[in-house]
Order: sequence, then C-alpha cells, then structure tokens
Amino acid sequence: MGCMSKDEYIASLRRMNKRVYLHGQSVSDPVEHPLIRPSLNACAMTYELAQQPRHAALMTAASNLSGRQVNRFTHLHQSPADLVAKVKMQRLLGQQTGCCFQRCVGMDALNALDSVTFEMDLTLHTDYHARFRAYLGHVQDDDLVLDGAMTDPKGDRRLRPSQQADPDLYVRIVDRRADGIVVRGAKLHQTGALNAHEILVMPTMAMAENEGDYAVACALPADAPGVTMVCGRQPSDTRKLEAGTIDVGNRTFGGHEAVILLEDVFVPWERVFLAGEHAFSGPLVERFAGYHRQSYGGCKAGVGDVLIGTALALARALGTDGAAHVKDKIVEMVHLNETLYACGVACSAEGRPTASGTYLIDLMLANVCKLNVTRFPYEIARLAQDIAGGLLVTLPSEEDFAEAQVGPALRKYLRGADSAAAEARQRLLRLLENLTLGPGAAAYLTESLHGAGSPQAQRIMLARLADLDDKVRLAERLAGSERIVTH
Amino acid sequence: MGCMSKDEYIASLRRMNKRVYLHGQSVSDPVEHPLIRPSLNACAMTYELAQQPRHAALMTAASNLSGRQVNRFTHLHQSPADLVAKVKMQRLLGQQTGCCFQRCVGMDALNALDSVTFEMDLTLHTDYHARFRAYLGHVQDDDLVLDGAMTDPKGDRRLRPSQQADPDLYVRIVDRRADGIVVRGAKLHQTGALNAHEILVMPTMAMAENEGDYAVACALPADAPGVTMVCGRQPSDTRKLEAGTIDVGNRTFGGHEAVILLEDVFVPWERVFLAGEHAFSGPLVERFAGYHRQSYGGCKAGVGDVLIGTALALARALGTDGAAHVKDKIVEMVHLNETLYACGVACSAEGRPTASGTYLIDLMLANVCKLNVTRFPYEIARLAQDIAGGLLVTLPSEEDFAEAQVGPALRKYLRGADSAAAEARQRLLRLLENLTLGPGAAAYLTESLHGAGSPQAQRIMLARLADLDDKVRLAERLAGSERIVTH
Amino acid sequence: MGCMSKDEYIASLRRMNKRVYLHGQSVSDPVEHPLIRPSLNACAMTYELAQQPRHAALMTAASNLSGRQVNRFTHLHQSPADLVAKVKMQRLLGQQTGCCFQRCVGMDALNALDSVTFEMDLTLHTDYHARFRAYLGHVQDDDLVLDGAMTDPKGDRRLRPSQQADPDLYVRIVDRRADGIVVRGAKLHQTGALNAHEILVMPTMAMAENEGDYAVACALPADAPGVTMVCGRQPSDTRKLEAGTIDVGNRTFGGHEAVILLEDVFVPWERVFLAGEHAFSGPLVERFAGYHRQSYGGCKAGVGDVLIGTALALARALGTDGAAHVKDKIVEMVHLNETLYACGVACSAEGRPTASGTYLIDLMLANVCKLNVTRFPYEIARLAQDIAGGLLVTLPSEEDFAEAQVGPALRKYLRGADSAAAEARQRLLRLLENLTLGPGAAAYLTESLHGAGSPQAQRIMLARLADLDDKVRLAERLAGSERIVTH
Amino acid sequence: MGCMSKDEYIASLRRMNKRVYLHGQSVSDPVEHPLIRPSLNACAMTYELAQQPRHAALMTAASNLSGRQVNRFTHLHQSPADLVAKVKMQRLLGQQTGCCFQRCVGMDALNALDSVTFEMDLTLHTDYHARFRAYLGHVQDDDLVLDGAMTDPKGDRRLRPSQQADPDLYVRIVDRRADGIVVRGAKLHQTGALNAHEILVMPTMAMAENEGDYAVACALPADAPGVTMVCGRQPSDTRKLEAGTIDVGNRTFGGHEAVILLEDVFVPWERVFLAGEHAFSGPLVERFAGYHRQSYGGCKAGVGDVLIGTALALARALGTDGAAHVKDKIVEMVHLNETLYACGVACSAEGRPTASGTYLIDLMLANVCKLNVTRFPYEIARLAQDIAGGLLVTLPSEEDFAEAQVGPALRKYLRGADSAAAEARQRLLRLLENLTLGPGAAAYLTESLHGAGSPQAQRIMLARLADLDDKVRLAERLAGSERIVTH
Repeated sequence: MGCMSKDEYIASLRRMNKRVYLHGQSVSDPVEHPLIRPSLNACAMTYELAQQPRHAALMTAASNLSGRQVNRFTHLHQSPADLVAKVKMQRLLGQQTGCCFQRCVGMDALNALDSVTFEMDLTLHTDYHARFRAYLGHVQDDDLVLDGAMTDPKGDRRLRPSQQADPDLYVRIVDRRADGIVVRGAKLHQTGALNAHEILVMPTMAMAENEGDYAVACALPADAPGVTMVCGRQPSDTRKLEAGTIDVGNRTFGGHEAVILLEDVFVPWERVFLAGEHAFSGPLVERFAGYHRQSYGGCKAGVGDVLIGTALALARALGTDGAAHVKDKIVEMVHLNETLYACGVACSAEGRPTASGTYLIDLMLANVCKLNVTRFPYEIARLAQDIAGGLLVTLPSEEDFAEAQVGPALRKYLRGADSAAAEARQRLLRLLENLTLGPGAAAYLTESLHGAGSPQAQRIMLARLADLDDKVRLAERLAGSERIVTH
Repeated sequence: MGCMSKDEYIASLRRMNKRVYLHGQSVSDPVEHPLIRPSLNACAMTYELAQQPRHAALMTAASNLSGRQVNRFTHLHQSPADLVAKVKMQRLLGQQTGCCFQRCVGMDALNALDSVTFEMDLTLHTDYHARFRAYLGHVQDDDLVLDGAMTDPKGDRRLRPSQQADPDLYVRIVDRRADGIVVRGAKLHQTGALNAHEILVMPTMAMAENEGDYAVACALPADAPGVTMVCGRQPSDTRKLEAGTIDVGNRTFGGHEAVILLEDVFVPWERVFLAGEHAFSGPLVERFAGYHRQSYGGCKAGVGDVLIGTALALARALGTDGAAHVKDKIVEMVHLNETLYACGVACSAEGRPTASGTYLIDLMLANVCKLNVTRFPYEIARLAQDIAGGLLVTLPSEEDFAEAQVGPALRKYLRGADSAAAEARQRLLRLLENLTLGPGAAAYLTESLHGAGSPQAQRIMLARLADLDDKVRLAERLAGSERIVTH
Repeated sequence: MGCMSKDEYIASLRRMNKRVYLHGQSVSDPVEHPLIRPSLNACAMTYELAQQPRHAALMTAASNLSGRQVNRFTHLHQSPADLVAKVKMQRLLGQQTGCCFQRCVGMDALNALDSVTFEMDLTLHTDYHARFRAYLGHVQDDDLVLDGAMTDPKGDRRLRPSQQADPDLYVRIVDRRADGIVVRGAKLHQTGALNAHEILVMPTMAMAENEGDYAVACALPADAPGVTMVCGRQPSDTRKLEAGTIDVGNRTFGGHEAVILLEDVFVPWERVFLAGEHAFSGPLVERFAGYHRQSYGGCKAGVGDVLIGTALALARALGTDGAAHVKDKIVEMVHLNETLYACGVACSAEGRPTASGTYLIDLMLANVCKLNVTRFPYEIARLAQDIAGGLLVTLPSEEDFAEAQVGPALRKYLRGADSAAAEARQRLLRLLENLTLGPGAAAYLTESLHGAGSPQAQRIMLARLADLDDKVRLAERLAGSERIVTH
Repeated sequence: MGCMSKDEYIASLRRMNKRVYLHGQSVSDPVEHPLIRPSLNACAMTYELAQQPRHAALMTAASNLSGRQVNRFTHLHQSPADLVAKVKMQRLLGQQTGCCFQRCVGMDALNALDSVTFEMDLTLHTDYHARFRAYLGHVQDDDLVLDGAMTDPKGDRRLRPSQQADPDLYVRIVDRRADGIVVRGAKLHQTGALNAHEILVMPTMAMAENEGDYAVACALPADAPGVTMVCGRQPSDTRKLEAGTIDVGNRTFGGHEAVILLEDVFVPWERVFLAGEHAFSGPLVERFAGYHRQSYGGCKAGVGDVLIGTALALARALGTDGAAHVKDKIVEMVHLNETLYACGVACSAEGRPTASGTYLIDLMLANVCKLNVTRFPYEIARLAQDIAGGLLVTLPSEEDFAEAQVGPALRKYLRGADSAAAEARQRLLRLLENLTLGPGAAAYLTESLHGAGSPQAQRIMLARLADLDDKVRLAERLAGSERIVTH
C-alpha cells in the first residue's frame, strides 16, 4: 500500500502492546502520554507531508522492489538524486517540526543492510539479502517506522565486548535455535523508539573473530516479548505536563529517547540479517553511520532555519533587526547552517552504487558533514541567544503574565518595539529556550554532537579515508624531494 | 557587625516582607520556597566562607571607612591587590556553588557609585558622596546583600527613553518632593533579587540632557512599598520541586532572576545618589559595567572548574580519561577557562585609583575579559558534552533507576568502567545537564553572554578605549608614510 | 580544433606582442622571463593534462556549440555533472601545480556572459548573444586563455563611479563609434594576465541608470594597442631569480598578478557584449562571481592537499607523524579542506539551467563555499606550520648547505629522523614556506580572501539570498505566535 | 656601567670577531651587512629607549646586585611590578620596531638561571649561584646582549638524546677539564644571535640520569673559538638588498635567526652553570620557557598594535574605515590583541618569589598566554589582510611606480580615497606584506607558534599544572557522588 495516513499511523501504534517505563511508571498508552505525544506528532509529520501533493516528490519515491510509490523513509536510494532528495526531505521536516522526527535511523539502517547483506551473500553464499528484501517489502507495504538500534552500553571503553566484566554490555546472541536466535543486552539512545513499529538491531562496531555472538543484526516487533523501553529524561521535559501553552516552547512537536532492554528476545530466522559473520559487522556499522552522518546535513539545517527565524523575529520584536551587528550575526548563522546543508548535499551528489544497486553516499564527505554538525549548531545557538537578549533566561512564567496583580505590568514592560508583541516575544523566547536549553537542545545540540557517532568517530574515519600517502606524493613531487623513510 | 553568619543572614531575610510572585502565585516565604532556596544557599555561601579561617583573607577586608573587617562584597577596593582578591573570591565561590551566588552586582554597584558620587560632588558641589558613604557604612555594618538594579525594559531599542510610546519603559523619577523622590518603572534580569536586603537602582545607560528624570540612582529596602518581584523561569526549574535528589543536578545550589516592578516607590533623599545629573549617568554605567565585566573572569572560571571536573570524572567513569583526544579536550577546556581568569586578573592588577581613592579596574582589559566570557564558556560546555557522551540527554529518570522492574537492568547496563559507578555517573551527568542545558546553563552560558552587557556593548567600549589613532601613527612611522587624510 | 598542446600554447603566446612592465622594466619576452615562466608552466598544465587520456574526461567536454571535444576551460556548462567536473578539474590542477593556474576566471566569465547576453537579448532585443557565441566559437576552436578582467581601481569606496574625483577610476566607454567603442581605465588583480590570449572586460559591480558608460563588457586581444600590463610583486618573488633550485620552494610552478592599463583601447562591435545596458551589469557580476566562488572550492582544496601532504612529510622527517596531536592536526586539515570541496561540489550539484541552456551553480551555496574559503586555508596553513616546526623560518639558505665550511655541519645537524632526509626536509620546508609565507601564500591565502570578492561581498549575497522571512514564518508557526510588525 | 648608548652598543659589536655565514658567504662585518643591519637596529632600540627619559622607568631598573640602574633586559625581576614592567617594555618595543628585538631570550635565561642555580646549590652544595651572580654582574655592568641558546636539533623526535644515531644531535659536554668543559653540538632558531655579545647555552629539555652530559648550561662569548653562526633565510629577505625604500616594508627594523654550531668549544668553569646535574635541567627549561611564554604577551601585542594601525590606515586610504564590517574587524583585532596582553600581565601580576628572591611568573597563566599567542596573531593577520584588500599581493613594485611610462598611470589609478595617498598606500601595503607574508611574518606568525615552545609544549604544561583532581572533587561534591575509581 506504501503510504499510510497520519491517522492510520497513530492508530497502528495504538494497537501495539509496548512495555514502556517513564519517570518510574509503567505507561500503558504511550500514544496519549503528554510527554510522548509531541514526539509522535513529529514522527507523524513524515506521514502527513507524504500525502501533501506539493511535498510528494520529496517525501515519496518509486520503490525499486515493487515499483509502487512508497514513503521515502522506507526506500532504497537508487541514484544520487534519491540521496539528495533524502537530505532535502530531512531539511523540510526539520523546518516543520523544529525537532528530531526520528524516522531517519530506520531508513539509514535499511539502506546499509541492503548492500551489506548482498555482499555477504556474494562472499559467504548465505541468503541474508533475500530475507532482508522480503522483510523490506513488508516494511514498505505497511509503511512502518523502524527504530534503528545500534548503540550498546559498552561498559569500560578500554575493553572489547568479550572482556567486559558483564558479557551483556554488548548485545549478543545467547542462543541459536532451529527457528531463530535469542538476543540479550540493551540499546541506548533509541531515538523515537516508542513511536516505532519495529526495532532493527545492528552491531555497535566492527567485531573481531572471537566476537561472533556480538555480530548480530535482526528485526523485532517493538512490542516483542522481552522488549522493554525506558524513556529518558530531557531538559525541561515536564513543561509538557504543565497546563499552559507557551512555556513549553514547542507545543506540538518534540522528541524522546529510550533505553531498550532486550531480555532474551527470540527472533525467527527470517528476521535475522547477521548472526556471527563478524567480518561484515564493520562495513554495516560504517555504512549505517555514513548514511546517518549524511542525514544530519538535512535535519539539523532544517532546525537551524527555525533557529535563525526565531532569532530574527526576536530582533524585530526589539527593533534591532536593522543593527549592523545583528544583521551580521544572522548572516553568520545562515552561513554556518548552509555549510552543513552543503556537506549533506555534496556527499549525496557524490554517491555511488553499491553491488546491490543501492546508492551509498561518499563516505569521506558524509563524515565531514557530521563533523561540522558537531560544531556549528552550538555556534548558531550561541548567536541566536546573543540576538535574543538575556530575557531568554529571566522571563517570568506564562502564569505570571496571566496573573491579575502582576500580569498587566509584565505586559506593559515586556512589549518591545511592537506594542502588540509581548506575547509573541514570550512565545519566541520560549521556542528559543526549547531549542538551545530545553528538550530541543537535546536534539539540536547534544544529539548533533553524539548522534551517528561522536566527533572522534568521524575523525577516525577521516584519517582512514583521506589518501594521505597520495597527498605526500603530491608534495614531494612539487618539492622535488625524494621519499622520506621513517619507521 | 561587619560579618554576619549564614544563619543570621537567612534569619534577616525571613524578617522581610517582600512582595514576590512565582509561577503565577504569590510567595509568602521565599526563604523556604524550594525553587528559591537553592539560590539562597548559594548567596549564603558568601557569608559562610567569610567565617572560615582559611578563606577569611579572600572573603573579608579591612574597611577603609571603619577599619573593621567587613565582608569583601561590601568593601571598596583600596588597591590592585583588593581587585585581584575579588576575582579570586569569585572563582572560589563559583567552584563551591557551581552557579551564580548573586552578590557581585551589589558590590560592583557600590564601588562604581563611590567614585562617581565623589566626582559629581567635586564638579557640581552636590553632597551625594557623603550620603553614599553613610549608606555604605550601614551596608557594611549590617553585612547586607544588595541587588544592583540596572537593566530597564527599554522597549523599542531604536528609540531614546523619552521617545518610547510608554515613558515608563525606562525607570524614572515621577515626583520630586521635599523629603525624597518617587520612582516608577521596572528592572529586568535582577539576579538573586529575592535574596537581597536592598535594591540599588542605577540608570541603564548614559542619559542625555533632556533625560534628567531617567538619570536616577538610589537605594531601596527590597520590601519597600511599591516594590514587587516576579521571579523568572529557568530551564528545568521544576526539577527542584521533584521528590528525588539526583535529577535536579545541583541539589544544593542554584540561582534565580526576577523582574522588579517599581510602582511609584518613594525614596528619601539620604538614599538618593543621582537625581537628574545626566552627565554622570554615563560614567556610572561604564564603571559599574567595568567592575561587573571583571567579575565574570572570576565566577565563570570557578564554574568552569566544576565543568572540567565533571567532564573528567565522567571520562573516568567510561574509562576514556586516558584517550589522547579526551586529554586534549580537557586541556583545551583548562586553557579557555584560565584565559578568562587571566583577563580577570589582568584588569584587576592594572587597576588605578579614582579620585575618591577607590580603585577602578583597567576598563579596556575588563571589557576584553567579558568579551571572552561571551564565547569560551559555550565552547567549554560543548567540549564537556563531547566527553560525557550522549547519555547526557537520554538518561532515564532516577525514579526509573529505583523502579523494581527496570531499575536493576538500568544499573546493570549503565555501570561504565567502574561497577560501583552507575549512580555516580547518573549524578555527574545530571550535574552536567544542569550546567549546560539546565538552570546552571542560564547562568553559565546565557548570563555569560548578556550579563554585565551583551557582547556588542563590550565591542563598543573596545572601539572607544583602544587608542586607534595611536596605532595608526605607529604604522605610519614604520612604513615611512605621510598621514592619510579622509573625511 | 579544440585542444592545443602545451607547446602550441606557449608558441602562440610567443607570437603576441604584449606591452609588459615588471620591476620597472619593459619585458620583451614574458614567456622566457624567470619571474613569469613558472606561472606560464602552471597555466600550461591546463593544456597538458587535457591531452593525457586519464584526465581527458575531466579536462575536456563536448562543446554544445560544435559538438567537438574542447578544453573544459572554454566550455559552457551543460549539466550539474559539468559543474561538478569543473570543480574536480580544478582540484586536480591545484594538486599538480600547488598554485593558481589562472585559467578559471576566463571560463567563469564566458559562462556568465552566455546566460546574461541571452537574457539581455530577450528583454532588449539586442543581438549580444549571437555575437558572444560567435566569439566563443573562436575561443573554443583556438583553445584560448582568457583573462577575465573585472576589478576596477574604485578610488574612494564611498563614492559611485561617476562621483569619483577622476572618472577613469572605473573602466568606461569614452567613445562610441560606428565600428566599435573606445574604453579607458584600469583593471587590478589580473591573475595570469601575461599568459592570456584575450582580455574579457566586465563591469566591476551593478551600475545605476546614470552609469551606462561604466556598464561595459567586451573582449580584447591581450596585445591590443593601448593595453599595458604591469606585473605585481609577490612575497619572495625574486627567489625565482636566484641560482639555486631549493629555496624557491616550488621550482616549476607559480602565479602572477598584473595591473592592466586600458588607455583608450578600441573594441569593434563584434567583440562588445554589454555597452550601456546598466540593468544587466548586476546579473553579470553576480553570476560571474558565483561561478568564481564555486571555483575556489576546487582549486584551493587541491592546493590544500599539497599543504597537507607537505606537513605530513615533514612530520615523517621528524618522526612525529605517529604523535596523537600531529595525527589530530592532520585530520583537522583534511576536515577543513574537504569542507571547502564539499561546498564546491554542493553548489555544482544543485546547479540549474539558465534560459540560454548554460547551467548556473546554486548561488547561495557558491557564496557559502567562498566564505569558507576566506577562513579555512588560513587555519590549514597555521596547522601546517605547527607540524613543520620553527625551522620553517630559520633554515639557512641552500648555498649554506652547499658551502664547504658549514655545509657538512648543517647536513649533520638538520637530518631529522631519516639520515638521508636533510635535503628532503629542506625542500619540503621551502615548499611550505612558499605556500604559507611566499608567492604561494599570495594565492592560497590572500587570494582566498579577496579573489572572487572579499568576504563582505559574500555576506551581502547571503543576506540577499537567504529567504529570511520564510525562516521567520517557520519560527512563528512553531511558536504559535502572531506576526511581529516593526517598521 | 649599566646603560650603554645605542652607538656604544654598535661599536662594541664591531669589535667582535664572530664567524658568520649567510647565503653561502662568510660575512666579515655583520654590523654593516644590509640583511643584518635592520635586526641590529631593532636590538639597538633596547639601548636607545633606555636612555629616553620618558621610557626610563620601563626600560631600566635598579639592580638588586649593585643598586645601580641597569637595562631591564639584564635585570633580575624583584617583584610582580618588575614582571609587569617587563611585559609593558616588550609591548613598547614591539610597537616601535614592528618586529622581534631579540633581547628577551637572554633576559629570560638569566632570570631562570638565577633561581635554578640557587636551588641547585641548596640541594647539591655546588657553587653555581655565586658564579652565576658574578657573571651577571659583568652582564649588567657592560649592558650586554645575550643570546639564550636552548633548542637542540633533536634528530629523531622519538628518541632520547643518547639514543640518536649521532650523539651530537643534542648539545653535550664532550670533555671535562680542570679549567672547564668542552661542548659540542648545535643550537637552532637563535634569534638575533649576530647581535649578541654572549651566548647563554641551556639544555633543551629535562634530561634523565644517564644523560648528564646533555645537562649543560654555560656562557660563551659570541666570538669564542669554535662558534659559527649560519644565518637563516626569511621570506622576502632579499628585498633588504634592493635599491628602493618602499618594497622592503619595514625599512629600518627586522630580525634574523641563526644556527649556531658549537664545534668543541671550551668554557672555563666560572662560566659554567650546569654540568651534569640532570635533575635541574627540567626546572631550568620550565622556568626559562615560562618567562619566555610571558614575554610573548608583550612583544606580540606590540606588533599587533602596528598591524591594527596598518589595517586601519589602509581602510582610511580606501574610505572604508566607517563601514560597519571594517569597524567590527578592527574591534576584533583589538580584542584578540588585548587578550594576549592580558595574559602576559596576569601571569606577571601573579608572580611569586623563588628561593633566590627572583620573581617567577605564574607558570600556568604564562603557558595559557603563549598558547593564545599560537592562535590569535594568525587571526589578526587574516583580518588585517581582509581590510587591506587584494592589492596586498598584486601591487606593482616601487620601480614601476617610478617608471616614466607606467608610473603616472599607476599613481592615477591606485590613489584610493585620498588623492595624495598613493604612496602612503604603497608603503602601508608593503608594511602589511612584511608583517603577514614577509620577514615580519616569520616573527609575528611562525615564531608566535614555535618560539618558547610549540603549542603542544604548552598543552603538556597545562595538563601538568591544572589540578585536575581538585576539579574532579569540586564536581563530585556538588553532584553528591562518591569517587569514581578506574585504573
């Protein structure tokens, strides 16, 4: 069927029986939980925009499996144009939601699994790729949201998985049965997990020969027995529980993160895509990370657009939008934001087909993209706070503005340049607070740093992918010098 | 008499009758309010440490008025050594509280008023300085906390005070009577106002000849009739209301900001230190801002120490503290933090006496100090988040850790390198969240940007204080070129 | 014929009679002048590589005019792939020459003129485009090097062309005759002018209605009567005149810049492409600048590759290439360099056809590209100097190394980690000196700042091209706030 | 007698018989050599200003040895005020010369040797300190220039001195005789060596127990038998040999660097200050480096003043000095420059007495100072180039301006905003070229990076001096967390 409506999506989630904990409580209906619902709204935008004619070209694509139009989040990229469209779709969604819409991880996992299972079969004569494609058909037909589950707890970072005091600190196969495998462990930082239909488990890093049990990729229904989700906190999260509509900052949209506990979860073989072939865990991680590092050149640029708009609106509220230094800061924000986007576009346009036909981004440029994402949003946020003024962190609550004794005075004094703008200013300041110091900052800043791998992970890839010896040869040729030999 | 104990301080606050609003509610006993108490604890540290022998040299000074040892926060700086001691005291308090301890603004206002009133009397044959010194004697004797109230709402930033649609958008004298003046308006961003005994009103900028009513400085009891304080929100503020002790991040200390409404407040002449002498509003603002820009080289470096320690402790929890890139980031944090401190020390050591004998920092270097403060804490915070890892924004609540079903699993999986460290890690992550995304970030980041004036204010001072023509002459002499004339 | 050999190119230059001055001397044979020849060698690489089969796909293209394969430097871009190929060609040439190869300006001018003359004819019913295409056929057939001449002296930057004390400070039409026009003025910063066959004059900025005489674009043979070239100095330029082969740094390649004086030069109408149609001067400048800002994402990344290789080779010479901080600096250099390239690729991949069919880069991203180029090469150069060590600026001359008394001791002491590497180290240090403090730095640093427009020019474009109102709307929608109105 | 005149200084140099090589030639009279003389002029300013009454307070000090007023460059710092005065003196000299005046290394070496020899005698009961003080008396009486010789060639950076293929790659004692020692090796990067009376040899790093022969400090007459100086090249060095007065950039002043070869040089015991006491080589290096890292907060800020002035003068020549972005860049340059100075002042003001009574800077802040110096001058230089415009690297030679055919046209077209300013603009551009791409850049940029130790050396010190465990404790106390234990 290919493209579900937003309402169908929400209804499909309601039908699930996820085991969810939040603030120490079991949550029976996450769809209606006020701390979760904004994140569901954000994810639902991936359905809603796909049904809007003016966004259909970006939001959907013709499946290379079925020929049918499917949501691009379930699509295998068939060209550089597909890769570029992905980035543009992400920017659009970032602009519309001002937060993380959570569906990219699954898309990136699907694309990575496609080429890696293909190559695994080629080398090892396994049949993972056919299984995977069958699974993908199901995902496309039912227009599913997938949680791409990669990050293991990792324990002591100096030790390999099998050296840890507790062998479960990396997700592993604890039993191999005729009908499937049993996995145990936990996955951290699971963005939007409560809004997913499926969990797509992947290994967290390249595994060595003796770490075969840790080389596992498979798909689970998000409410499979043994799966528990513990929702993490975010800055200012409980504002979503407050009565008002202003102080929450972004009333409609948000995000969430969860720890997923996998307590001896059974997975039938048709949903297993890697089970011991350790040599393919590295490529799988590398490609998934590459796709996901591309993603950030889209979504974060979209949120950056919101942040720039917020800052400029606040400058207008103060009458400072014409000041040279404010204009200059806006330009700097635009420059940094567009640099992120440029990197996202570049690694996409330079994409190349893998053996399975699915296109892979240019890995070097995708890592460059993400490394910039670990820096520029922080500076954009700083500049936005600069333009906004200190009221960002001193503004009284919306209840005070509504209070009979002090409300009128607050409105009198906090009006800015436009007499009618006291409330607009309140709302924009709260949005900016959300994006730079609140739940939005968890996504726009900290996730920009660590999502798809922390900066050092990108640096390691850069060192590996840059052909440094070739650069040395260029230098030596121009210098007319013989080769320097050191050991 | 000169140095109150912490308990006496708190008792003295209890005796006051401030009119306070918070989250739309009137607050009858701010001292005990859980949202306010942490800020009171922070301010109280200025009393507590003053009574500890090993900190007495830093925390107290011999008053030039009475010869008695007084709390340094009430002291007039009598030497460069005093100015340097001030910065060291601030760093100490930042280290101990991890937040803003709120008492600097009043200290900086006192020192600025001392020299300006002296010079005003010299020029205009007024008697402000004697009045001020009498008032200061009272402040020193009773060891009072003063709220230095400078920032007006300002309305449309393109218009002068008298051009605003509402003349009250800058605090002004609305009546001059035989026994005193009546002031009206509001002061924004009043750090720690609820913990103050007194409000020291100052003009927000240099006033022009026709703006005499806006050139007003005076002292009010913080519970004077007509004074209302509306406490502002901070990121994650309501965590202080939660039952737990971990997720709040910094359990003991915090800060707060308030809008102060001045609704036709009467001030007797003996508490008035500027009332129409517009030409002295500029120097008063400039000196106060200068002292306060110096302050940030102390307190923010102190909080920076906490942030560096937090990041390193978290690296130890992960076993990454020996990784080259982590060590390098710690060094970078130290470097940036010490640069702030160096600037604070430098402007102090280069301090010079004013006509009243009170020492003024080097204004150029104080502005340089603050301009660095508008930048480096953001980068320090980013580096700390880098080291901490993504769990910073995905960690479940402390209730989840305590919950019977999922708590054990969370403790199992989030243990890091030290099996006993799951809770330590939780606590440190929450402290880091507090400092970079929570209420601590309001002080460590946004206040670093806007407190004591936004970056552009420092840049304007730099342009003014740099002897640019002299630099041009140096260049022309070395170039052997004649003077370039343009108009 | 489309593609000349390198030797034919040099021979064709020899046949010209340019009027050239250099260091106060008239230069009769620039081709053989030791200060000019390295720049000729660099430009000649655009011919040489075009004839190498492995580079032909990048270096040549099928002309949309003739269908014949022509040098890409004379080609009109017919697709995003053409635009991307341009950037890759430029990176290749930067890698091979370590300097500016000078032929891009002409290419960028041709592409800009093509679409602008087409649109001008559409609007004004002129016949410029046919003229231009005829001229271009000649350029492609004869495989010519064009000097794109844009920058006027500009005098007092606060005054418009017609307000200047001297009307010639912007190039202008001083006479319109039946057979053509007469132009007067000067063009500054003419990169590689001595190696060009033709000068393609363009206006320096958007002209106003009363500035029609300044709105002029036309083509001149580089040795036309009235044309004089005065070659500029570069840092360490005279090392090219020294006897040795090492201290010059880059022995084979280099660049040059010239002031071109146009002293009443006659241009027949068939070579005139704009003559008074002031409204089209703006688009012409904007598109040319856009193409040229794209270019820098290629060539400077190529030189950056050389710089990275030089730094790494020097680290190997010292045995420091394995040190964590050195590896980290190399990664940082790679990251910055690839970011430039990513921006060059992105604005190309996002290229769109103009009305004439010639593809134009995405202007926003091209400006973003160049703005990064004004920053990152400086940091790359600083990091390279960091790795190289202080010997970069304290190394004795090659004559000292060859001298009988001290040469042996110098070789003994400056050997580094590889006993045979003393000379390699010398050569690499001199190459690095060339690139960061010598003639190469003129191109790699200062030209990166000012070529294709100074940073402020890019910032103005960013402010213009960013749809800021759209961003404000995004923010207002998410904040739920009404529109703020200020005037 | 304490303070020589400039002429006496030059005369004293003339009387020496140094063995000097330059560009492969033996130089018989370095004082008159046009490549050396500008550096002599710069060093001579340390004498000239000392005799000017208005600079005497900064340039001279009362010797703690004799009570006589001596040149501050020969003085042992007796107070924080002395340390601050040193920095101010250096800034003054940087402003006056626009280059390195070379005399600081000797001053810093003297101060470091004073306290270390004192402590060595205390511990080891040697008599180095008395010897040193006797030697210092001679230096003060005769107002000598000392070359502080620290940096050894070091060969393979991964190997210790004794592990090198050639044991001479670090300076060492090759013979110990009754009357003295014989040293062999080389010292690199010897700033201003040709202008020195004496060479003060120091070890290049902390030596281990088996490296006693490498732990050597001693003083040599600069023309002692066995001493050879090979002068290094600088960018654009030969412009000093050209006939003109403009293109050289800084006509009067400059710097030079030399390799000093020590070919079995005999040093009598009274001039030996360390000879095998390896444990004291570390403190000596650390203190010398600390003093010298302080120095850069003075001299580089002085040159920075010249650079700011040059940029502003050039902006005036173009009429752009009123443009907002130019004003902002000037402010940024001032800010960065004053930050360097602030760090220099801070580490001085925080100086503490050593056991010998000589004051030592705060080592942490001195290292912070230098680490900023490795960064900010590069950005200041970039901003200056931005303001100056591209003509910086395209300006024709002064001979062209003087040439009959093209000179008038050049003057016509390159006049800028002031009709009389064509030559001023030439001169200022050449000064800027000198400072950012020429010989001045060797000192202002590369020496800022590597002088007094490369950035990594400062980072190692920061890691060592920051009390990181204390910061961890601060964090743990606020977090309420137990200690994390990792191994």
